[in-house]
Amino acid sequence: MHITSLDKTEKSVPNMEGAKGVYKQVPLSARDGAPNFSFRVFTIEPGGNTPFHTHPYEHLNYIIDGSGFLVDESGEHPVSKGDFAMVMPGEKHQYRNPAKNCGNLVMICAVPSQFE
Amino acid sequence: MHITSLDKTEKSVPNMEGAKGVYKQVPLSARDGAPNFSFRVFTIEPGGNTPFHTHPYEHLNYIIDGSGFLVDESGEHPVSKGDFAMVMPGEKHQYRNPAKNCGNLVMICAVPSQFE
Repeated sequence: MHITSLDKTEKSVPNMEGAKGVYKQVPLSARDGAPNFSFRVFTIEPGGNTPFHTHPYEHLNYIIDGSGFLVDESGEHPVSKGDFAMVMPGEKHQYRNPAKNCGNLVMICAVPSQFE
Repeated sequence: MHITSLDKTEKSVPNMEGAKGVYKQVPLSARDGAPNFSFRVFTIEPGGNTPFHTHPYEHLNYIIDGSGFLVDESGEHPVSKGDFAMVMPGEKHQYRNPAKNCGNLVMICAVPSQFE
């Protein structure tokens, strides 16, 4: 059993080309013994975004705080605190926090452990 | 891509012997095409609890709201809004929301899809 919180979890700037105003934390991971999948948390500042990218694995998201857009090839889809989202393997996508927002967009991004 | 929220997600009383004052929602699941793991949400009313039980799979939790205890064979461990927890396969555990609390304990409980 392992209990933690974001204030006890190291912050890093993710190594993702095209990311802007984003930091990453990994509160529950393979390093803690997670057998199958991991909980990462991304914080996106106002005006920031993750890359518009694809990868060969899904992610399951929960919006902890803030609001913004989950973008795919069909356009911008609004998301806000309390929403759940799933992006499928190979689906091109991006999270954006508009510059006009006052607060950070904070989300859990759970992935299979090998893609942590 | 799939975006949803708890107010759009069916509630059910889980089929778990020993559960009290608990309901279950499954916002992201194999039914939505989740390839590897699913996000379930359990809501535990004040005075309620999940069974003190074990299962052959892990779960990764995020406390969306409220406070209470994650119990294992070593005792009661306090958890509250914003905490992350991981329970390993075979580890005996229970979530409890004390009767003196005013609000529900609401948590994401993510599991491999086959155990959804």
